[in-house]
Amino acid sequence: MKGVLDIPPELVPVAEMIAAGLARVVARFDRALATDLPPVEQLCRHVEGYRGKMLRPSLVFVCGAAADPRAGSEPVERLVGETHDVLGAVIEMVHMATLVHDDVLDEADVRRRATTVNRLYGNETAVMLGDLLISNAFHLCSTLGSQRYSQAVGRASAVLCAGELLQLHHREDYSLDEPTYYEIVERKTAELIACACELGAAASGGREEWIAACGVYGRRVGVAFQIQDDVLDLTGSVATVGKSVGKDLEKGKATLPLIHHLAHASQAVRGRTLMLLEATSNDASAAGLVREAMDATGSVAYARATAQRLVDEAKAAAGLLPASEARSMLMAMAEAVVAREH
Amino acid sequence: MKGVLDIPPELVPVAEMIAAGLARVVARFDRALATDLPPVEQLCRHVEGYRGKMLRPSLVFVCGAAADPRAGSEPVERLVGETHDVLGAVIEMVHMATLVHDDVLDEADVRRRATTVNRLYGNETAVMLGDLLISNAFHLCSTLGSQRYSQAVGRASAVLCAGELLQLHHREDYSLDEPTYYEIVERKTAELIACACELGAAASGGREEWIAACGVYGRRVGVAFQIQDDVLDLTGSVATVGKSVGKDLEKGKATLPLIHHLAHASQAVRGRTLMLLEATSNDASAAGLVREAMDATGSVAYARATAQRLVDEAKAAAGLLPASEARSMLMAMAEAVVAREH
Repeated sequence: MKGVLDIPPELVPVAEMIAAGLARVVARFDRALATDLPPVEQLCRHVEGYRGKMLRPSLVFVCGAAADPRAGSEPVERLVGETHDVLGAVIEMVHMATLVHDDVLDEADVRRRATTVNRLYGNETAVMLGDLLISNAFHLCSTLGSQRYSQAVGRASAVLCAGELLQLHHREDYSLDEPTYYEIVERKTAELIACACELGAAASGGREEWIAACGVYGRRVGVAFQIQDDVLDLTGSVATVGKSVGKDLEKGKATLPLIHHLAHASQAVRGRTLMLLEATSNDASAAGLVREAMDATGSVAYARATAQRLVDEAKAAAGLLPASEARSMLMAMAEAVVAREH
Repeated sequence: MKGVLDIPPELVPVAEMIAAGLARVVARFDRALATDLPPVEQLCRHVEGYRGKMLRPSLVFVCGAAADPRAGSEPVERLVGETHDVLGAVIEMVHMATLVHDDVLDEADVRRRATTVNRLYGNETAVMLGDLLISNAFHLCSTLGSQRYSQAVGRASAVLCAGELLQLHHREDYSLDEPTYYEIVERKTAELIACACELGAAASGGREEWIAACGVYGRRVGVAFQIQDDVLDLTGSVATVGKSVGKDLEKGKATLPLIHHLAHASQAVRGRTLMLLEATSNDASAAGLVREAMDATGSVAYARATAQRLVDEAKAAAGLLPASEARSMLMAMAEAVVAREH
């Protein structure tokens, strides 16, 4: 979480534990993808360039440390072990697979400043590379001592795909309501994050109620994360380049601010926004006008407040764990989700 | 295997065991994909229409019966149980996922007389539906008592993807040699079939050498199956519709007959064939001329003979199992792979 958090001194040992853990995750990730086929090797190397903040493996470690019965009485780096490393690599690999396939879906050309696989090698290769990542994730997971992990990862991954399918089904459906939005986001974004939290806690032999608390924490943080993404897609670009306000608007994705706006605007404004949405792909000014209309209904503020409420709920769930520096880190990470500007 | 084999009377009990087993596989398959999301439900229903001969689950059952230490002394239907049912459903689900993704890769419009998912709902949905199938396959597999199955299916699935990636890497590479062709086919086609055979045998508590024999059987049958596909792509359509001799030729896939032809034709003929291959996508007569050139080098006959040799090797491997009606069925199924005309 370097760069995301300004780390207060008391959390430095946890931050160091995460950093050391992530280095081991990267090593396992790379080893799991090792192959004797040079063209496949090259593709796997490329994917490694997609790595970002590694939120999910970080949560495996922090929840692992926070739910360990020895939390507080042992140095934090002793509270995580090989199972956490493997789980971190497995969940990151599933996440990477969804990124590679998302880029095919979105016809994206660039991901984290690197040219996407689909752009470089074609959609076919990107589809198969994603499949290879998923398969290797499951294979790696099945090397762990218990089927519990394989079952949870398989289920979370299936739920994630169902969420993506539901979102595709509702593309350009501007009558989408908030409950359906949450149905999508809880599956598509929150499920795998919750899985990382739960399994991290389970791998530490935490009590069932602590594991459940970590699951709730991850679910709330996951939804807040997505809402913050929705907000940044609207507000981030105006502040920076000024162009293409809202890729989501262009793609017809119903985000929380947009749903709120359409539900709260007058009939006339609603109609105007719907017309503007039609035009976003070939009229650069349309998106800006939609944003202004959203401001008038307080929709971005509403989304921000909703994300903050979810973060508070996440922190309340984490509060069910015994006090420890790892638990304090969970609180800080939840706040960082809504504080981030990228 | 109905319709593929003319079943001799002594194999009727095995055929009935397979038919009953496949019905249970279908039920498990459907149950594993059950969802409370209507749009996702609809997609899963659609995929069920892709079901073909179900070769892989059939092999789970027949290898299971043939490698059971009680084979020959117990009625064949008592030799397979719930683990075989689950494995059959898991492997069929992985196979279905590859079909859905292959259709995206090939921009196919029709599969088994049904409109493809990509054609009906778009590539995005097809990619995610394939991912949902893989995830559900792994989830279902992880409900079995042993991680052995999850490990084997994860590994086979990763090998399969690597084979597809290798094939994509060599697309329109007409200098591809036979060893590389086998590298691709053993991964892309044979690995999952071998996995079905091995796990079917393992689930029956067969001796390790019997499990290994089933693996060799599946691997040889798998490669023979692909070569027969190569041959049918060239010969099948001339006999029937006459149009588009060889989708493989159009797509720049190096098949065994083509590889043999390019390696054995004179310099001049080779050059002419390569020029014709360039033209196959917009000149209907080009593919016919390539086929004639292949006949002159005896390349289709060579491919047929190679497939038959692999079938003989598969039967020799099955010969290591104790004699039983299930083993006789394995022999008949191997022959059916090269006898089939579709």
